[in-house]
Amino acid sequence: MAVDVRTEPTVQPEGASDHIAAAEAAGDLIRVLDHGFVRFTGAMADDLSVVNAARVSFADTREEMSERDGGLIRFLMRERHGTPFEHNSFRFHIKAPIFVAREHMRHRTNSFNEWSARYSKLEPQFYLPAAEDVRTQVGKPGDYTFDPVDPDTAEQTREAQRAVYEGAYRTYEQLLERGIAKEVARNVLPVAIYTQYFWTVNARSMMNFLSLRAAETAQREIRRYAEAVEVFFAREMPITHAAFVANDRRAP
Amino acid sequence: MAVDVRTEPTVQPEGASDHIAAAEAAGDLIRVLDHGFVRFTGAMADDLSVVNAARVSFADTREEMSERDGGLIRFLMRERHGTPFEHNSFRFHIKAPIFVAREHMRHRTNSFNEWSARYSKLEPQFYLPAAEDVRTQVGKPGDYTFDPVDPDTAEQTREAQRAVYEGAYRTYEQLLERGIAKEVARNVLPVAIYTQYFWTVNARSMMNFLSLRAAETAQREIRRYAEAVEVFFAREMPITHAAFVANDRRAP
Amino acid sequence: MAVDVRTEPTVQPEGASDHIAAAEAAGDLIRVLDHGFVRFTGAMADDLSVVNAARVSFADTREEMSERDGGLIRFLMRERHGTPFEHNSFRFHIKAPIFVAREHMRHRTNSFNEWSARYSKLEPQFYLPAAEDVRTQVGKPGDYTFDPVDPDTAEQTREAQRAVYEGAYRTYEQLLERGIAKEVARNVLPVAIYTQYFWTVNARSMMNFLSLRAAETAQREIRRYAEAVEVFFAREMPITHAAFVANDRRAP
Amino acid sequence: MAVDVRTEPTVQPEGASDHIAAAEAAGDLIRVLDHGFVRFTGAMADDLSVVNAARVSFADTREEMSERDGGLIRFLMRERHGTPFEHNSFRFHIKAPIFVAREHMRHRTNSFNEWSARYSKLEPQFYLPAAEDVRTQVGKPGDYTFDPVDPDTAEQTREAQRAVYEGAYRTYEQLLERGIAKEVARNVLPVAIYTQYFWTVNARSMMNFLSLRAAETAQREIRRYAEAVEVFFAREMPITHAAFVANDRRAP
Repeated sequence: MAVDVRTEPTVQPEGASDHIAAAEAAGDLIRVLDHGFVRFTGAMADDLSVVNAARVSFADTREEMSERDGGLIRFLMRERHGTPFEHNSFRFHIKAPIFVAREHMRHRTNSFNEWSARYSKLEPQFYLPAAEDVRTQVGKPGDYTFDPVDPDTAEQTREAQRAVYEGAYRTYEQLLERGIAKEVARNVLPVAIYTQYFWTVNARSMMNFLSLRAAETAQREIRRYAEAVEVFFAREMPITHAAFVANDRRAP
Repeated sequence: MAVDVRTEPTVQPEGASDHIAAAEAAGDLIRVLDHGFVRFTGAMADDLSVVNAARVSFADTREEMSERDGGLIRFLMRERHGTPFEHNSFRFHIKAPIFVAREHMRHRTNSFNEWSARYSKLEPQFYLPAAEDVRTQVGKPGDYTFDPVDPDTAEQTREAQRAVYEGAYRTYEQLLERGIAKEVARNVLPVAIYTQYFWTVNARSMMNFLSLRAAETAQREIRRYAEAVEVFFAREMPITHAAFVANDRRAP
Repeated sequence: MAVDVRTEPTVQPEGASDHIAAAEAAGDLIRVLDHGFVRFTGAMADDLSVVNAARVSFADTREEMSERDGGLIRFLMRERHGTPFEHNSFRFHIKAPIFVAREHMRHRTNSFNEWSARYSKLEPQFYLPAAEDVRTQVGKPGDYTFDPVDPDTAEQTREAQRAVYEGAYRTYEQLLERGIAKEVARNVLPVAIYTQYFWTVNARSMMNFLSLRAAETAQREIRRYAEAVEVFFAREMPITHAAFVANDRRAP
Repeated sequence: MAVDVRTEPTVQPEGASDHIAAAEAAGDLIRVLDHGFVRFTGAMADDLSVVNAARVSFADTREEMSERDGGLIRFLMRERHGTPFEHNSFRFHIKAPIFVAREHMRHRTNSFNEWSARYSKLEPQFYLPAAEDVRTQVGKPGDYTFDPVDPDTAEQTREAQRAVYEGAYRTYEQLLERGIAKEVARNVLPVAIYTQYFWTVNARSMMNFLSLRAAETAQREIRRYAEAVEVFFAREMPITHAAFVANDRRAP
């Protein structure tokens, strides 16, 4: 008997209250992969904060942006004056596979809180790549590219992964039913299972994240998360974002 | 001829625009020492952010605080679960003597931008301790206390310090007039001269700052800045602040 | 046909050169769990570094420890003067299951480099708890304890986990053989699979790690890693380690 | 009566024991400015640590550098793979004017412990620029250059600064003699007074420091400290240093 491993795209977490749907309606949630999302939950962020942090070098602060301030932001970006980009903050709620979360949490000047599989049972949601995302690796270390595989191989890969997910989750549930501790039962869960976490970050650190993860060299799955994050960055700090792009996406 | 070293209490920075006065009127600026201030310029901060960051451990988030959530915050504080206190941010504009700024900027998980004496001329504002703050040091290393001195000694100290400030600033101005670079002329400026900076910090790091600097062992002058900061912390995150106090002011 | 998932205890990584064995012979490697280890690979660490960093507060440095310096270290620990404990460094090579590595890498003032499953094929080594480590969770959130299960349940748990590991690894290999990219094929691998990483840390941050992870509230598996790390800490900085223990294992 | 403000170049701190001289004899101390120094006091650092931290991505470690490993280090530098450069550590003892120390301590992923003017009396040593370092600032904000001044102006500047130093230190001593607390008496001390501190840093963070402070845009005085630091970096990690230089001195 097959476990009900949900493999249809969905962002609705088990037992989610209405605020997930409300966030999507408000333009504050972007779906990523089959079950994931990036949800913007708050910010203290605008381009003026960059300008004012730079102007304090001259004991000068302003209440509004002027025409010239865009030039100041581009100057700071280009000359790698990074600290003025730190006086702001973004907070996100993210749902992603564990292998994505692992790459994400390597970024250290950031704050994270994550769903604990020691304290609560994980849900049967696993990342199953869409057929066009089942890929083969071409080239040599340090210079890989990824090509699509033929449709049959893609479908067989999806079937094989789904079968492992179902078997692993079934074992997980059986162990829990026998009273095995969650932290022991979870040993069998694949890294494609979804987790959730809060992430708080300032624009400087976010640009470092984007330069590495919204990039061709990043794994495709985390890249999609980074692209969603970038939408919110551009929305809240448009001049800073434009300066980042104009600077070849190098963080200051 | 005496330099016009301003030694009367004032928070009005040279050339300040109206937003300093507006901030004070709005309750967002607290005067500190003779010329200094702590100005609250923005925050993404509430007690709910702590609760939600903790609840994500159970894949649960809320839109409102409930009665029980105060207990959760106190539990996190007591058990040193620090990360849920990081998903928020405060931004301040501070004016303080250099010797205070030096202690402040030793706190590393924080963002600072400061007035640069390489780029602009500093103003003739120096910290001159009020008579009751002229003190003598009693006891031995690691266990000092500070007692007031007699009124004559206090006044003579103030006179002596004022004289040095005036002489130093006069030399500073003369060197600038002769064309000496600001970064060379400033060599003579005493550490009591006022600087200004932006400071952005989250609640966890702020509690660490408060535990060390709003404390008996801290130097009296930075302690007054810390006490002003704490007013804004308590205003924005009252339940978290109360839990911090109840936890013997130990940061989680 | 069963995959050759090695479930007998071993610390020998696939293709390891002789330095693993040499490290163990030299007392620089401690085995942890069934296939894991903590290998000490270098340090710039002694108790004198703490003393000297504190003495610089008085413009005083020494070339040797004196009798009184132990008292200074205990004073610093008790009064939470943390920075003098940062002027040293330890470097470790660690082999641990992914779920342990995930907890470990949440410690941010540390440096990590890890085996990448994007670049190389992972080996068929999974953490299979010893019978006495198969446990059940008793109590309620925030106050759990863990009891052993009966021998039959323990054995069935081990059998069930081993079966998932074998099936998952078999699928992983089949996908790789079909040319699927490593970063896609690894989706199916359970979090119990072993990874390896380098970890560099100073004594202050290590004490924070030990206070949280060599503790009753930590998961048993990471606790064993922390206990191994602590052996090397006590060996290199015995007076500091003793002061840490005497301070109720609270990091300064 | 003039205070004995020492203005002749010296690196001998008041009450220094023989290890300062021994360090200089051993090539571990470089004199900087008139009274300052950079003293190398220990390291856990070699090029192999970079290679091994990178090789662990492939579950491979080595005991020796090979010919090809230089290419790996250059690749990591160029592609901004920064973490492999963190598994090492340098510790320095530095004597510098306060205005230099202030710039230095803005580098946050570093450890510092400094002489405290709250706990001990500072010595009468002030930075007095050599005649050729008395300079004028030419150009506009963001694009300054510095030119020498004529010999008379240089000498008058030196005289004027020396006079302020002597007056300020005389007042400092008089206040201490009257029993004023050190932390109050120091208000009058100019930012050119020398302080001392310990600094511990890894190669990645050091390269960031060098890219900003051993640069044309840095103030000349801190630049000389950075150049001294770079000597030790190049000595301990020559291949990494060469790769840094070849990478236009951009930190990875």
